[in-house]
Amino acid sequence: MPVLVMKFGGTSVATLDRIRRAAKRVGVEVSKGYDVIVIVSAMSGKTNELVGWVNETSPLYDAREYDAVVSSGENVTAGLMALTLQEMDIPARSWQGWQVPVKTTAAHSSARIEEIPPANIMSKFGEGMKVAVVAGFQGVSPEGRITTLGRGGSDTTAVAFAAAFEAERCDIYTDVDGVYTTDPRVSAKARKLDKIAFEEMLELASLGAKVLQTRSVELAMRYKVKLRVLSSFEEQSDEAGTLVCDEEEIMESNVVSGIAFSRDEAKMTLVSVADRPGIAAAIFTALSEGGVNVDMIVQNISEEGRTDMTWSCPVDQTKRAEKAMDEAKAAGTINFNELIADTDVAKVSVVGIGMRSHTGVAAKMFQVLSNEGINIKVITTSEIKISVLIDRKYMELAVQALHDAFELDKAA
Amino acid sequence: MPVLVMKFGGTSVATLDRIRRAAKRVGVEVSKGYDVIVIVSAMSGKTNELVGWVNETSPLYDAREYDAVVSSGENVTAGLMALTLQEMDIPARSWQGWQVPVKTTAAHSSARIEEIPPANIMSKFGEGMKVAVVAGFQGVSPEGRITTLGRGGSDTTAVAFAAAFEAERCDIYTDVDGVYTTDPRVSAKARKLDKIAFEEMLELASLGAKVLQTRSVELAMRYKVKLRVLSSFEEQSDEAGTLVCDEEEIMESNVVSGIAFSRDEAKMTLVSVADRPGIAAAIFTALSEGGVNVDMIVQNISEEGRTDMTWSCPVDQTKRAEKAMDEAKAAGTINFNELIADTDVAKVSVVGIGMRSHTGVAAKMFQVLSNEGINIKVITTSEIKISVLIDRKYMELAVQALHDAFELDKAA
Repeated sequence: MPVLVMKFGGTSVATLDRIRRAAKRVGVEVSKGYDVIVIVSAMSGKTNELVGWVNETSPLYDAREYDAVVSSGENVTAGLMALTLQEMDIPARSWQGWQVPVKTTAAHSSARIEEIPPANIMSKFGEGMKVAVVAGFQGVSPEGRITTLGRGGSDTTAVAFAAAFEAERCDIYTDVDGVYTTDPRVSAKARKLDKIAFEEMLELASLGAKVLQTRSVELAMRYKVKLRVLSSFEEQSDEAGTLVCDEEEIMESNVVSGIAFSRDEAKMTLVSVADRPGIAAAIFTALSEGGVNVDMIVQNISEEGRTDMTWSCPVDQTKRAEKAMDEAKAAGTINFNELIADTDVAKVSVVGIGMRSHTGVAAKMFQVLSNEGINIKVITTSEIKISVLIDRKYMELAVQALHDAFELDKAA
Repeated sequence: MPVLVMKFGGTSVATLDRIRRAAKRVGVEVSKGYDVIVIVSAMSGKTNELVGWVNETSPLYDAREYDAVVSSGENVTAGLMALTLQEMDIPARSWQGWQVPVKTTAAHSSARIEEIPPANIMSKFGEGMKVAVVAGFQGVSPEGRITTLGRGGSDTTAVAFAAAFEAERCDIYTDVDGVYTTDPRVSAKARKLDKIAFEEMLELASLGAKVLQTRSVELAMRYKVKLRVLSSFEEQSDEAGTLVCDEEEIMESNVVSGIAFSRDEAKMTLVSVADRPGIAAAIFTALSEGGVNVDMIVQNISEEGRTDMTWSCPVDQTKRAEKAMDEAKAAGTINFNELIADTDVAKVSVVGIGMRSHTGVAAKMFQVLSNEGINIKVITTSEIKISVLIDRKYMELAVQALHDAFELDKAA
């Protein structure tokens, strides 16, 4: 039998009714002849409740105990889903991470999956079980302790199972009906994509289109797992949602696939840094150790042995960045005149595999922004993405103008 | 290091504050030099919530999935307790049933513990761990699936650990401060017992003094585990609560230790049964298969080949009993004239190891009831217990009069 992996997130299993609705979807796939592996999250709200208890009990908690507590939410859903399927006369059973086993590293609370031996579940499929319901987000360490993969880890669990079982597809059921060209709340013309390449999805995900966890997309790309994102709240056909796949499978596509954005950015500039080999390493090591997630980095040319260094980071990390730089200056490891923070910026990005073979995308993007009178503060580019920092008040305008200019409301 | 087992029930770990209070008690024992095994229940209310979900999902649920879901409550408490102890700088870690492992039979939802190999936990004690926090009520089947021991099973877990680790004592922390000569709500003169014999505790427990689960007392008796019941809501000394122990350890005791009672009983009489060898087996097999828990049984002498058969059972099972008897009559397996149900009776029992060596207890009991004008409907006796059925309205009066007559308000 071909294997299908179906993953249901927290909102899709938030109540017993929703679990029943999800189980019906599973039943549809079973009736098509699939052996199905269902990956479930905790009922929405449950994980937050458990995390809250752990934090209140022990602010600097032992991550091994955090994992033991927090993983229990998924176990509850897995059992309830198995029972629901059994009520529909579908042979099903639940599996906790250690039972499969989902072997992970010992990096508690952010463990990585190392191996999922398919033998146990496959032998049950051989005995007539039609659905294996697996608690997502969890595994077991080499020492036999429970691990978790970090928030959103159930997506990663789903893709890892799809890879290990050579599943025909991995369907991610969530509360949105697919991946859009941009956030429909920002542009009414946003259009759902039928297909998107892994690389594009990665850029969109890490830029704030929080449909799929980044790690799960990386994993799907590496193991060529066909990933489909679709809504658990609508009747679904085989063509519903958005298929995230290898670019070869996308015959026709726009040069630009989507416009991503991130609202709460800050631009920070270290003015007149004493330039020397290793200075960039010194600065960004200090920021990293200070807990600052640096995104864009720009270095101006050096004059008379001094340079300016600019970076962007989440706006709520500017205080940490200032502290890290002040301490580095006091310690004598970095010499600079001042640190300027611009906390009123947003990032807008144009993403598309097609850029690789099409020139002029950057020029067109800058022209569109210029036509709207929007000043560009920082630019960075990658092979399939161009990002700019602009004043936050222009963010919606920029997204809408770019969406129009690249005709994203029209299919390729 | 000597090992101590401490068990905290649901009300003793109902909130993070109560978990902290329980952890402080654990800290006191650690400071005395014990290696401590803490057995925890789910936070009160949690198990009922989970059971409710299972029942709503699947009324005739797969007990394996029931166990997978319901066991999660204890896992949460175990992790939170370990974190709380760590916050107090006490080296602690949590253990789920499968991690110890607590090996049980595969009788899901009512599994029996078969073996608890102490090696894993002992090796951690050897490495400096002071407290092993174990999720109660659960284990793992030979097939590697999660099992539960049935409601109240955490007491059994605690005693089984005390036996396996040859613990010096097993302290059961609960919401009462010990075992009383009778229910203080019925007699204001009820006195807390310092010590009680296993056999007496068994009679009191099964008669409704719901302090300890019956199975846990049986297990403690078999393995000679010293069991102490005490309150988690009071400051405790080494002599607090009630010690349940071998009768040899009780130097002085009253002939009668306590007065137990059960309010909601029914007395049923099968009138003019055709008597023949095997008729009792036929009747009580039919009742058992009909889901009736028969307690007392009395058979009158047989006259002219017919006899009357009387039994008692919980009052809410009389309909089931009538159905079972009607069906047996229709099937021709039992022949009788009529079935009379008296649903207004209560059971009162006098319990005491001392009865073995003292005569006259029964006579005194009957005289006391007679003096109060209370008619006795059924009598049964065992080696250490005399039980009577009386009209329910006299129950409190009977308990108080017997408590006075046997001078249970005074220590031996």
